[in-house]
Amino acid sequence: MEELPPKHGAETTKRKVAHSDEHGFSDQVRVPNVIVMVGLPARGKTYISKKLCRYLKWTGFKTKVFNVGEYRRTDANAADAVHGANASFFSPNNADALKVRAESARRAMEDMADYLNSGAGSVAIFDATNTTKSRRKTIIDFCTQKRIRCFFIESVCDDPDIIDSNVTDVKVNSPDYKGLMTAEQAKEDFMRRIENYKQQYEPLDESEGDLLSFIKVINAGRSFKVHQVRGHVQSRVVYFLMNIHLLPRSIYLTRHGQSEYNSMGRLGGDSPLTSDGRKYALALAEFFEEEEVPGLRVWCSQKVRAAQTSQHLKPDFHTEYWKALDEIDAGICEGLTYDDIQQRYPKQSEDRAHDKYHYRYPSGESYEDVVSRLEPVIMELERQANVLVVSHQAVLRCILAYFYDRPLPELPYIDIPLHSLVKLTPRAYHCDSTIYSYDIENGKWSNTSAQLPLCDSPRD
Amino acid sequence: MEELPPKHGAETTKRKVAHSDEHGFSDQVRVPNVIVMVGLPARGKTYISKKLCRYLKWTGFKTKVFNVGEYRRTDANAADAVHGANASFFSPNNADALKVRAESARRAMEDMADYLNSGAGSVAIFDATNTTKSRRKTIIDFCTQKRIRCFFIESVCDDPDIIDSNVTDVKVNSPDYKGLMTAEQAKEDFMRRIENYKQQYEPLDESEGDLLSFIKVINAGRSFKVHQVRGHVQSRVVYFLMNIHLLPRSIYLTRHGQSEYNSMGRLGGDSPLTSDGRKYALALAEFFEEEEVPGLRVWCSQKVRAAQTSQHLKPDFHTEYWKALDEIDAGICEGLTYDDIQQRYPKQSEDRAHDKYHYRYPSGESYEDVVSRLEPVIMELERQANVLVVSHQAVLRCILAYFYDRPLPELPYIDIPLHSLVKLTPRAYHCDSTIYSYDIENGKWSNTSAQLPLCDSPRD
Repeated sequence: MEELPPKHGAETTKRKVAHSDEHGFSDQVRVPNVIVMVGLPARGKTYISKKLCRYLKWTGFKTKVFNVGEYRRTDANAADAVHGANASFFSPNNADALKVRAESARRAMEDMADYLNSGAGSVAIFDATNTTKSRRKTIIDFCTQKRIRCFFIESVCDDPDIIDSNVTDVKVNSPDYKGLMTAEQAKEDFMRRIENYKQQYEPLDESEGDLLSFIKVINAGRSFKVHQVRGHVQSRVVYFLMNIHLLPRSIYLTRHGQSEYNSMGRLGGDSPLTSDGRKYALALAEFFEEEEVPGLRVWCSQKVRAAQTSQHLKPDFHTEYWKALDEIDAGICEGLTYDDIQQRYPKQSEDRAHDKYHYRYPSGESYEDVVSRLEPVIMELERQANVLVVSHQAVLRCILAYFYDRPLPELPYIDIPLHSLVKLTPRAYHCDSTIYSYDIENGKWSNTSAQLPLCDSPRD
Repeated sequence: MEELPPKHGAETTKRKVAHSDEHGFSDQVRVPNVIVMVGLPARGKTYISKKLCRYLKWTGFKTKVFNVGEYRRTDANAADAVHGANASFFSPNNADALKVRAESARRAMEDMADYLNSGAGSVAIFDATNTTKSRRKTIIDFCTQKRIRCFFIESVCDDPDIIDSNVTDVKVNSPDYKGLMTAEQAKEDFMRRIENYKQQYEPLDESEGDLLSFIKVINAGRSFKVHQVRGHVQSRVVYFLMNIHLLPRSIYLTRHGQSEYNSMGRLGGDSPLTSDGRKYALALAEFFEEEEVPGLRVWCSQKVRAAQTSQHLKPDFHTEYWKALDEIDAGICEGLTYDDIQQRYPKQSEDRAHDKYHYRYPSGESYEDVVSRLEPVIMELERQANVLVVSHQAVLRCILAYFYDRPLPELPYIDIPLHSLVKLTPRAYHCDSTIYSYDIENGKWSNTSAQLPLCDSPRD
């Protein structure tokens, strides 16, 4: 295994080529990483795993969650070693069950190593309790042998409100209980399961090894303890975990109203709104008068059409103008229509249709470039409460792909019509999405609870 | 004082206008922040203060360090309360000296509050030991009354090597000792001073207050403890502290070799190297053959001229291509000469000369925009060991301004000739700079230890 110096790892085994070379960050991972969750049940391990996975995938790291509970459920059914999965299964005295659980963990680890060492992925997230030192030692030894870097995330929580809300929100709907008992019974059983884990719980400790790297997330992000972070991926993971929060809030996304270039079918530019666009700007201001979103902040691109769209919003919303929210730079195609491009640069049209996510306009940007410049925006969105983003189609596609957890190749096809507003409300394991559409003709909003679909026409 | 919710602060008092609106990050600070250092002498508090100040200034936050030691030295001299500043001055039993020290701290705090509340600055760094709870309570109360957000950075170190190297490197040259005693005497006295502080040292503790926010930096970044981070500035500070390191290393910066556009005096574009440029690329590869920099990594822009400049470097240097390192986008001026611009867009030339840092090329970028997109590069440079950056004039000006600690308005005037290589070696409180110049004619390198000067001609 190559040497991993204490502060900045030599993440260097082979050159990467092609697309990932075009993306500053994804190019930095050379040593694969396993991120190992640690903590009692109902401490948000799966929440963190899923959220981190979504973030890393969006930033270009191939990432996958390996949930030992899912392996266990398959194993347990196959082996018929237990009936259901009630709390007694998780007792440290149930030898048969211990064997099943160890076997599930082993299978998950083997699959992780295959995933990373085959080159299929660069980060694996190992979602299990891993509450004993011996369990963690097994993992560390396994990773050392497989030449995988290992980082632990322990979620520690002694706030009964957080635990209770987690058990109620997520656990009573667990596949372990589905159809087998009432919600109340499930909750009671689950609390017993926690007690069983508590009997043998050994919190992470620096003394577990010189090479140990970890972050402890204490009471859902109130405090953190961080030890021996190694390499770029771990550093990003730590930063991300420090910026996310669980407080309820919503994020609103809208394109600017119709611009003069829109009405002519031209790309990019910096044209002002048409009269329809101005109507939308007024309607948007009215919408937020009625919606009464506490402490709303407005983030707007620096283009004229976006600034005009946000101009009627109440001044106490504190509008900020981010260059990072500007539309994708179409380079030599700025100001052209799609027909112009087809005619003047047929090869470009073809290349773009072939791989729309990685295609870069000559002297301009690709969607991948836009994702890269939006990373600080996503980090800041995670940190904030209620935010309205007034931006552009390509940019909002990138932001939506993050919250919708869509694969990157699909990202450039998310259909975001003009004069519609998306409201995203993060939940435990997903994001609620409501689409408000404004009809310019009759001056009315309508809404539907759905994610925005992919485009029929893959052109724009 | 406005409400500061636990995870994401309402940093919202007034709208900001003009330039800072164009910069995503600097626009986020509304509540001023005091960053308060805590720790025994020789724990790197001044190192952290200076480095953090440089980083925050570079990212657009107006930041200033208030060093209580400097106030004390003035006060002590004026009051003539002590003779010199030997360890006895720092004894908790020296009542007169305690009074002088409290008075120095008070003056520094008043100046900080003026600095922040007058709008002259947005972050003040309070560099003093602040090792007692009562001292910190005074600061917290003061900040609450002045409506300033307060964040503590405690440096904790029990590694004798780190302490010894810090005392030797920095403290024996302190103005407290200069000319008064030998280095050895100074060191001894200083170790006694540390002992005096130890007698009353109370490490930071969550129990000091519900509003307390802090980071503990343990053994120069091996571990961290982070508690109740509030708002954008504190989040950035934490991320920065987690990425810096003290290991010796050097950063090399070079522009690409001469390109065809260079030889024609044209801006931007993506032209290949001239024959002189190709000679420089070969010379650069030879330079690094001889320099033998361990584990060197090469970061290159995605422009042809930069890729060609790095192409002869040994493959085991692992070249990475960052779009963030591409030259400033000159928008409508791409491909023009300065004379063309003067002729076609005289108003642009004038605006640019008037405020070169904030001037943005129409459909292009400003230097401020470039700094903003380079922020992840700087963070990653801080995290890395030896790196060679092959990039472009405007980009290297931004990176150099960071390491040289130059004011932003000077940044666009740093003169970086073609075919020269800057070697930066970070030291405790500054950065050593060596300039290697390659003479294409005679095929020889020459070098000089200096910072690059500002341009005579402010044009390019």
